[in-house]
This record gives sequence, C-alpha cells and structure tokens, in this order.
Amino acid sequence: MSSNAFGNIFCFTSYGESHGKSIGGIIEGCPPGFKFDFKAIQYDLNNRRPGQSMITSSRDEKDVVEFLSGFNKNISLGTPIAFQIKNEDKISNDYSNIKNIFRPSHADYSYNIKYGIRDYRGGGRSSARETASRVVAGSIAKQVLNKFGIKFITYVSSIGLIKLKKSYKEIDINEINDSLVKCPDNIISKKMIKLIELVKNKGDTVGGIVSAVIKNTPAGLGEPIFDKLQANLAKAMLSINGAKGFDYGGGFEMTKLKGSNVNDEFIKKNNELTTKTNFSGGIQGGISNGNDIYFRVAFKPVSSIFKIQNSYDNEGKKVKFKIEGRHDPCIVPRAVPIVEAMGAITILDHFLRNKCIKI
Amino acid sequence: MSSNAFGNIFCFTSYGESHGKSIGGIIEGCPPGFKFDFKAIQYDLNNRRPGQSMITSSRDEKDVVEFLSGFNKNISLGTPIAFQIKNEDKISNDYSNIKNIFRPSHADYSYNIKYGIRDYRGGGRSSARETASRVVAGSIAKQVLNKFGIKFITYVSSIGLIKLKKSYKEIDINEINDSLVKCPDNIISKKMIKLIELVKNKGDTVGGIVSAVIKNTPAGLGEPIFDKLQANLAKAMLSINGAKGFDYGGGFEMTKLKGSNVNDEFIKKNNELTTKTNFSGGIQGGISNGNDIYFRVAFKPVSSIFKIQNSYDNEGKKVKFKIEGRHDPCIVPRAVPIVEAMGAITILDHFLRNKCIKI
Amino acid sequence: MSSNAFGNIFCFTSYGESHGKSIGGIIEGCPPGFKFDFKAIQYDLNNRRPGQSMITSSRDEKDVVEFLSGFNKNISLGTPIAFQIKNEDKISNDYSNIKNIFRPSHADYSYNIKYGIRDYRGGGRSSARETASRVVAGSIAKQVLNKFGIKFITYVSSIGLIKLKKSYKEIDINEINDSLVKCPDNIISKKMIKLIELVKNKGDTVGGIVSAVIKNTPAGLGEPIFDKLQANLAKAMLSINGAKGFDYGGGFEMTKLKGSNVNDEFIKKNNELTTKTNFSGGIQGGISNGNDIYFRVAFKPVSSIFKIQNSYDNEGKKVKFKIEGRHDPCIVPRAVPIVEAMGAITILDHFLRNKCIKI
Amino acid sequence: MSSNAFGNIFCFTSYGESHGKSIGGIIEGCPPGFKFDFKAIQYDLNNRRPGQSMITSSRDEKDVVEFLSGFNKNISLGTPIAFQIKNEDKISNDYSNIKNIFRPSHADYSYNIKYGIRDYRGGGRSSARETASRVVAGSIAKQVLNKFGIKFITYVSSIGLIKLKKSYKEIDINEINDSLVKCPDNIISKKMIKLIELVKNKGDTVGGIVSAVIKNTPAGLGEPIFDKLQANLAKAMLSINGAKGFDYGGGFEMTKLKGSNVNDEFIKKNNELTTKTNFSGGIQGGISNGNDIYFRVAFKPVSSIFKIQNSYDNEGKKVKFKIEGRHDPCIVPRAVPIVEAMGAITILDHFLRNKCIKI
Repeated sequence: MSSNAFGNIFCFTSYGESHGKSIGGIIEGCPPGFKFDFKAIQYDLNNRRPGQSMITSSRDEKDVVEFLSGFNKNISLGTPIAFQIKNEDKISNDYSNIKNIFRPSHADYSYNIKYGIRDYRGGGRSSARETASRVVAGSIAKQVLNKFGIKFITYVSSIGLIKLKKSYKEIDINEINDSLVKCPDNIISKKMIKLIELVKNKGDTVGGIVSAVIKNTPAGLGEPIFDKLQANLAKAMLSINGAKGFDYGGGFEMTKLKGSNVNDEFIKKNNELTTKTNFSGGIQGGISNGNDIYFRVAFKPVSSIFKIQNSYDNEGKKVKFKIEGRHDPCIVPRAVPIVEAMGAITILDHFLRNKCIKI
Repeated sequence: MSSNAFGNIFCFTSYGESHGKSIGGIIEGCPPGFKFDFKAIQYDLNNRRPGQSMITSSRDEKDVVEFLSGFNKNISLGTPIAFQIKNEDKISNDYSNIKNIFRPSHADYSYNIKYGIRDYRGGGRSSARETASRVVAGSIAKQVLNKFGIKFITYVSSIGLIKLKKSYKEIDINEINDSLVKCPDNIISKKMIKLIELVKNKGDTVGGIVSAVIKNTPAGLGEPIFDKLQANLAKAMLSINGAKGFDYGGGFEMTKLKGSNVNDEFIKKNNELTTKTNFSGGIQGGISNGNDIYFRVAFKPVSSIFKIQNSYDNEGKKVKFKIEGRHDPCIVPRAVPIVEAMGAITILDHFLRNKCIKI
Repeated sequence: MSSNAFGNIFCFTSYGESHGKSIGGIIEGCPPGFKFDFKAIQYDLNNRRPGQSMITSSRDEKDVVEFLSGFNKNISLGTPIAFQIKNEDKISNDYSNIKNIFRPSHADYSYNIKYGIRDYRGGGRSSARETASRVVAGSIAKQVLNKFGIKFITYVSSIGLIKLKKSYKEIDINEINDSLVKCPDNIISKKMIKLIELVKNKGDTVGGIVSAVIKNTPAGLGEPIFDKLQANLAKAMLSINGAKGFDYGGGFEMTKLKGSNVNDEFIKKNNELTTKTNFSGGIQGGISNGNDIYFRVAFKPVSSIFKIQNSYDNEGKKVKFKIEGRHDPCIVPRAVPIVEAMGAITILDHFLRNKCIKI
Repeated sequence: MSSNAFGNIFCFTSYGESHGKSIGGIIEGCPPGFKFDFKAIQYDLNNRRPGQSMITSSRDEKDVVEFLSGFNKNISLGTPIAFQIKNEDKISNDYSNIKNIFRPSHADYSYNIKYGIRDYRGGGRSSARETASRVVAGSIAKQVLNKFGIKFITYVSSIGLIKLKKSYKEIDINEINDSLVKCPDNIISKKMIKLIELVKNKGDTVGGIVSAVIKNTPAGLGEPIFDKLQANLAKAMLSINGAKGFDYGGGFEMTKLKGSNVNDEFIKKNNELTTKTNFSGGIQGGISNGNDIYFRVAFKPVSSIFKIQNSYDNEGKKVKFKIEGRHDPCIVPRAVPIVEAMGAITILDHFLRNKCIKI
C-alpha cells in the first residue's frame, strides 16, 4: 500500500526531503543481464537539473547519481537497484523566515494537518526536488524499453497562451533538444522564453502543458478494469508536483465531436493491423493497440512568487511575507524529463506485467 | 497487483462479463456496525440503468443488486460484502454478426491480442455494463461518508458544444435530479436533449464532460508521493469506459495563467483556516485542505455508431459491417453515477488510510 | 492490502459467512484459453465436504459450485472467475444458546473486540466453512499446473500420537484416496479411525499433521527477499483454520543435526542437476531448485468439544455452556484438500510471477 | 507486489548485496512526531554483528547505520526513513575459487537458474548480511511499540540436541543478554557454547531454535482471512535465511493432544478477560486476544562447512572444492535480533492496520 512506490513489477520506491542528506530510491523488477549506460542516466538528470539558465532556479545541484546496489559493474543483477543523489547546495536559511508560515497554494498547511509536523526547509518531502529520483528510475526504464524499440518524445507544447501548432506526429527530437524551453519549434521557443523572462522580471510565474508521445509500444499492454493503461498513466502524471490535468488521444477536444468523426478505422500497414486515424491515442479498452500513445499534462504556474503575500502561521496569526529562496518562474521545461520518466516507468511496468497473462 | 480491484483499505474487486450469468464484486474494508439503506443503493443503480428514456440504450436491465455476505440484516459486519447483479435482458444474437470483427475504437482488437480469446457477446468484460457494480460499491462508500458530512454533487457540464455556464459553487442538486441529462440548468438541459436526439436520428453519437464536487472532505486526506489524492482520483476516473481526460481545480485553464492570479490566499472562516479562492481544487501537495474538491472528466462519443463501417476480422480479411444491438447515443448522463461512485470509493479509501498515519 | 485475498498474479479473493446466503470468491490471473474440467473441481470440493462419514460433522452441504463469470463454456477468458457456493443446510438455531458467549479457543472474543460486532451463527466469517472456496480456487490452479506436469500429493501423516512411518517419497496416491482419513497406509489408517471414534464418543477432539509433496516444480520459482517460496507457503498454511505450525524439508528435525549431515550434494540425473539428498525440501535461498518440495502443517484439535465448559459472555458474566451444532471430532482429514489448494494457489502464483523476471 | 518489501502500512523495503557498496532500505509508515533513540538501534545492530566472539564469523563489519531521510534530528517526520550500512570489511577474493561452483544447500544454483546471472561475491543478494537492514527497521518498530507497552523477549531455546527447559513465562531478559549464545540459562548456555566449539573445530556447523515472546499486544490485531496474525508472523520468520519451520502457541506438540486438554478457558484478571492457559499463543481466529504471543523458529545448520565437498560448476563440470571465507559454526544466536526485528515489524504493521477497521 506504499504511497512512496509506483509500479507493480517494475517498481520505484522514493525517499528524501529537499534539505536532508540525500534523496534517492530503490528500483525493483529491473530485468537481469542488461548492460546500462550510466552516462545516459546522468544526461537525463542534467536535463531536469536547475541552475542551467536564467530561466530556471539558481540552485546549483550537481545531481550526481550514486548506485549502491543491483549492478555488477554496469550489468543489472535482477536485484533491487538502490541509488542516492546527495543534497549539496542547500541554503536552509532561505526558509527560516517562512518556518511557521503557510505559503499559499503550497503543501505547508495540508502537511501540517496530516502529520502534525513538517520539514519547512525547502518544502521537505513536498519539494519537487524529489522528482530527480524519478528521472533516474525512468531513465533505467527507458534503456530497457529502447532495446525493444520503444521510444519517448516529450516536449513543451504551451506556456501561458503561447502554443505550439504542430501535431504529435511532426515532432523532431533534435528541435526539442535545441530549445531552452524544450519546445520543438524555434520561433515558438523564442516567444516562450520572452514570456518567461517578462514574468520573471515581475516576480511572477506562468504555467503550461507538456506533451508526450510513446512510439512502438507493442499491442496488449494495460490491464482491465482499473489498471487500464491510460488510468495508470493518468495517475503517474497527476503525481507530479504542479500537475493539474491529463488527457490522452483526442482528449478533452473529443467531447465536442461526433462518434462518426473520431472512430479509428482499422487499416493494414506492412501487413499489420493499425488504425487510419488515432483519436484513441494508441489505447482501446485500456489496452495498447500498437499505435502511437500520446497524451498531455497540464502544469499550473509555480506557487512561489516573489511578491508580498498574506497568509497565516502555525498559531493562527495573520502574517505578511515574501518568499525567499531560489525558484523557477516556469517549471514546465524542467517537467519534461519527469513526465518522460513517469511514462517510461508506467510502460515498462505494463510491459513486464503483460508477460504473465498468457502461458 | 489486482487490476480488477480499486482501493487499498476500502477496496472493491469487480467481476463479470456483459452477457455472463451476473456481474458483481466484493467490497472489503467497509467499517463494521454501520446501518445501510439498501434502497438508496438501488436508487443509485437505477440512475445508471439503461432503458429509462429515449435518449438511452433500450436494453432493459432491472439491475437488482443481491447481497451475498457482509451484513447482518442491513448492518455491516466488517467482513467482505459480496454482491451480484444478474444479467437478464441479454440478446447475444445481436452480436453474432460481429463475432469476428474488430469494431473501430472498441476493445475487440486489443483484447484479442492480449488474451488470444475474447467474449464477443456485448463486449464481454470490456462492456460498460461492468460499471453497474462500481455504482453499488460507490453507493456504500457514500453512505459511510455521508455520516461524516461528506457530500457529492455530480453533473453533466457539457455535451458536444453545449456547455453549462454555472460555476461549481452554484449547483443545485435538485436541478440535476430534475434533468434527463443530469445538467443543473433547465434551458441548457433542453438544448442538450435536442442535440442528443438529433445525433441519435443520424445513427451517430456525441461526447461530453462530467463535473464533480466533493464537499466537507476533512483536511489531511491523500498520501504523498504517488498516492496524492488527485493522482488516485485521476486513475479512478480514467478507468471509466470512454473517459479521455481529467483535470481538477483550475485544471487545464490554469496553464494559461500567472502565479499571482491563482495563488489561493489563506483566510479564516468560522475560526478555521480555508482559502479565499480555490484554484487548488481543495488539494495541496496531494493532500486535501478542507476546501471543496472539484474536477472534470472528459468522455468521448460512444464508438457504437449505427452507420456502415469498414474494418478487419480475426483472420485479417477486410469487412464492411453495421453495428446492431442497443447502444446509447450519448453516454455522458449515465456516466454521472459512475463518476460519483469512483469518487466516493477513492475518498473513503483515503479517509480510512489517513487513520493510520498518526498514533 | 486485502486480507481476504491471497496471491499476487494468480489471486483469490474470498467472501462469505458460514450462515449467510453463500460463500465464494473471485479468482484473478487465471491464464486465458485453458479448458477446465468442472467435475474435477467438484470432486475436490466433495473431498472437503462434511457429512461423508461418521467421523465428520453431520452438516450435509451439497457444496455445489456455481461459476458466474470468467468462462466461455469451460474455456477460461483471462477475466476474473467469480463463483459461489450456496449455504443450504444451515441450522442457525443451533447457535442461539451461544449467541453471546465467548467459546474457548474460538474467534468469538477476538472478533468481538476487533469489530465490535460479530455474526455468531456458525462462527460467521471465522468458520472453516470459508475454506470450501479455497478448494475451488486451488482446484483451478492445480488444473493449470497439471498441464506443466506439476503434481500434488497431500495426506495425513499423524493423528494424535498415531504416526505414519513412510517417507514422503514412498507415498501411493491411491492409498490416500482409499483411506477414510487420507492416510496412505491401511493399518495406520485403521488405527487413526479407531482413535477418532474413541475421542468422538467422549465428546472430545484430536489434532494431527498434514504432509504435502509437490513434484516437478521447475527450478526458479520464489522471489527473494520476503516472498521466498517457503515464506509464502508458510503464510498460506498458517492462514488455514486450526493450523499451528509449518516446516519444510528437514524442518524442525534439522535443528538437531550438523551441516555435514544435511548438505544436499549436487548430482546429475538424466543430464540435469539435482541433489542426492533433499533436506532443502526443493527450495534453496527461497527459490525452487527443481527437486520435490515437501512440507508439514500442524493442526490443533478442534475447539468445539461436546463437554460442559466455563466461559464469559458479552456482558462480562460468567457462564457454563455446552456447544451444540455439528462439529468434527478431527478436522485433519478434511484439511487435506485445503492444504493442497493453498499449495497449488501459491505455486501457480509464483509460476506466473517468475515469467516476468527475465526478458 | 514487491518481494523486497515487508508490511502493508509499516513497510520495509530492503536493498543490497553482500559485497556491494552498501546494504540498507526504506521504512515507510513510521508514525510522525516520535523521538527515536539512535543508540538503541545501533545496540540492536551490534547484537547481530559478526566478529564478536570466537563462536561467530570473523568478518568484522562495523555496521554503522546512517540515516538519509525521514527525521528532523531524531524526530520522525512521517516521511520515508532511508538508511544505509556500508560494506567495509569485504574480502571478495575469498570467493574467487567458488565463482562458478554451486555450493551445496546454498542459493547459487537456484539464483543462477532464475536470473541467468549471479553475484558470487559473498553470496550477493542471498547473503544473510541483508538481515542487518531488517534489524534497523525492527528496532524502529520496537521503539514505537514500546511506547504502547509492547515488549519483545527473544532467545535461543535449543542448539543441536541441547535444549532449554524453561517455559516462555519464566524467561529473564537479563539472562539472555548475559549469555554469549542468547540462552537465558547459565548452565545450558555453557553446554551450547561447548557444542559450538566442538563443531567448529571439526569444520562443521549446527542448527537450533529461536523462541520469541511478545507481551502486552492489545487484543484485535490480525486480519482475517489470509492476513491472520500467525500467517504473517510465519511468513516473516520463514523469510529469514536458514529458517526451516515455525510454530506458535501449542504448536506441533498440540497435534498430539485432545481438545479438552488445550482449550483455553476464559477468566477474569484485573477485571479484564484473559485465558487461564495459553495454548492459543495469544491469537484466536487470526486475531490477538491480549495474552502473550509466543512462537518458535527452526534454523538449519549453516551450509558453509569447512570440509571438502563435491559439486558441479556453471558449465556442468564435476568439481571438488573447499569453502573459504568467514562463516559462523552456528547462526542461531545471531538470528535472535533478526527474529525479534521481523516480529516487531509484523506487530507494528498490524497495530497500524487495525486503526482503520472501526470508525
């Protein structure tokens, strides 16, 4: 019943507070005998890392992952893979002025009610710093899936009102990598960066949408009734800090359309069945059909704004305060590797689960 | 790892195919010593039942729930509550012409790949008939939660392009009950009905959105990291047949806004802390804060349209076919009790889980 | 976290009180496309059934299993298999005199404390009647395992002080079936029957040991660290009503011996590695090694004796009472199919789990 | 479905190989706001530590536990408690001669079959070194339970044929601590030590039994049907390396007795109901009744004997070999803190689970 674990067979258990000794976790169910590229894991981590540009938080964590078990050199043993990422650049003093204050739209109040105690330094367990560990687990999942041809394309499709026009089919992965905001369109990227700078200068923040495509997933993944593939993807995504919504395939737009517009006709391609259109988003009846899986995740604007705000403290006293510390004006680009990681964990878990259906 | 079960402490396990002997399930974790109103359960079931009006399927299931265990008269024993709903009005012959055909946007193809066998009669396990069982479990959950003052308001907020304008705060539960399409606005309801009739006459179908509000949830429900309250609500909702998306609080709209617009300032009301605005949707850091929880679920148009369609059969032959059987032109009103049921199961489960955090 | 469910992939969820409408359950994870022999399931059930001879309870339940889902005729669909066994020959009046009394060594007092309510009729949920459902699930598991050559031999190896001398390797399954007390030795069987009659005539009861052998289990089943094969077998067995102990392979006897006496030397047989001796009981490091798995389960004497006993009632008043109803003087022979069922569920679950380790 | 995790609410997930960087784990569900005594945890670890006397392995691990998360100073936050114990005194060369050899009665062969790869250094994941982590989790559980008056008494009750005569009620905890072999009887202890020395000098090993008593457990712990308290204790114990059997209360001895001999009559003591005798071992119907819980765990003689043995290697070649490395002639005294730890984890988990039954 662990709430710190995700996945059933490929299962990741997370630990760590923002300003504790380290964050990290244990990955179970990684198949044995696989050769891993540790540099690729570090590359993914670096993609999430703050301190990379003026549009991100200036907290400069090296985020070096250290593996503690589960490998013989870089070959997986089939045993649990434990790892830690040390917390190095923590300035807990930044938080002493808000020690007892419930920051608006943060987890301060709800954690306090739930646990009767909270680690105020950097948000403690509720900090998005925890998601670095998910990137490690996701990166391992991706490397396994890659060997079966499964690929992930994840990108920013909107920030504020600025929106990418391209369909999920037209994305060039190099353009994502070239963009500071992980948006696969040079012109839109520039507009997004300008918006973030504008917002940052006002001490404000802005939200956006991350889109993801999973290619070459075999048909048959997903378990009816409650572990439908989209249900577990939705859970995975809504577990990310700041996520407010999820839709897949035709999504919310589909509610406005007629059945005759959106039914995906079966056709043959290379002698395999696939569908002509893909409003289903690669999933039918909760089970993948082999077509591209694609979905969107909505992120709210970061709650840590640098303006004077009103609130209350632990003792019920009214206070005025201003958040210190180092925060992102827009978390959306940094959410890209996290969405990808959670997607990869979900898909690998279902990939392994599906192996015990037929015998 | 059961994919037919939902919940950790209050846990519902579902069984049954559309045209088998019965559907039903086992409810675990229902607290002992509660007096239940069986008529209220039947009332909720009737709300989901087809055959009630010209805008729903004409399949006329009585949907009488029969309890097999877990009660002494109508008092819960704390032991598993098993129940069944018999499948009575099944016309399996309706399906003989599509026995080997993969219907577009149905689960036929993906089930076939996954299991190597499928029950073609009425969609078998993939049929939305299964959701009747969820309504029973949800109705039991609601009765327990009601005793703690927790209330559910669930309604249709859009069908096709016709949209309810009211905020989640203005909903009158009587107006929902008075509306054939479960929309709490007399004029909008009429427009929706007209649209459904229009669509039905063309042998077509249309999608829509169900909105839900949960009132009086105590602060503290939800378990970081992966069992955040919104994550489990998202999973619950995306597990419903035809659901394509979920958002909560400010949702997708919030991606367009600034942090300074949507931060929920804490205020005092009746000497209790609450928030002035509620973009957070009653959940902060994955934990309820005591304010109203509200969310939306997108439903696609039903895939069973009454037009000639192209597809392939089991043996890879191209076919033209027309769906027979009895199907809804718009499933959205009948999804209302299902969304409510899944919401109630999720909340009661978290309500019980929260009892073992502090000792 | 369900306490009414056993197994992770092949998972059985049980419901039902002794004197409710029915007992039964839901079996998940049964592989699709298998043809089942329903008569063999009924045969196993009949083996557990009371009312068969003078040495068992005279409660005469037909124990006819009715399947509600999961099959197309007798071919499994891969969907949940639900079933019920109706409670027909219930004489609840037998229990009215003990309605409020805590019977010694029964579950009355502990259930009452736990739930604040209890179903006194026939012991309610704590009744061993529930184990009939396990036999159904186990019988299905056995049929799947049989197709892979895995066989179960389960028998009574002691009753009171009367003990079978044969090793687990010498058991003839026909002799078990021929024996009223399921003991594969004609002379010992007769002694056991005589003992049970003697004990019965005095209104008393007697305990004993059930032994089990599982042949042809492939090497590789069992999951370190906590789901070692023997750990899950131990849990399975100790979950049976009246079980007081479990040991496997050399068991408790091995504590008296030296390492040099009990190390199982590897040898080759038919060009396959196996071990010369088998003190390991077919399991090393929690994982099957391909050799015979064998274990023993201790059962206490039935607590329902027909003598005047002292106790207390719900209200703390001292009482003298005599148990009515129909009870077995010795439950051990009837425990044989239950031990076998729990063994089969455990092995099939691990068989399926093992399929998702290597890819 | 994690096989490296134990417990449902209070849940411990273990990682680590014998000769990797570290072993350790993550503890979830520890209640927040508790002040912990870290020295007491180290004390328990030291009790399990090798290298303490001539009757144990000479591997000299400091076994210093380092906490990585979950605490503010020494106060629990309610978040996951991660910790590691570094592997320092590893001499992997000791194992190079057995790199490809399947040691008799070890996990070498079965791991190799299961994973297709194994870490031969010190047994890798199958090494009993892993149990040090359990002692940390158990020590934390004990400190929480101690605050509710629940106490553990764990001791060696036999080694080889030398047997403690005392009943579980007569044990003096100081005598356990004073004994090098954790046996609460000075004379028996001396005999046991002499036996171990004798066996050691011959390069051989010997088995034994650990007994445990849990005092002051409240009535009501344990969840029918499959999570009966004794079922989860049995699983916990059989998951320990070298464990071959478990019984509780009257145990295997009870199979020889009559119902009238072993029924536990209810009596009043300090105006509370309890039982006169305690053959039930404090558990009735799977639920604690408030009386002492007591059980026994059988341990086989260590398989690492220092004699020339026959076996086969990875490639199917016959080999003669002698085990090097540092091994205990008798593991039983060092198993005492592990049995206690697993007992404490099980009880605390059920203690917390029981809090969500009644509302």
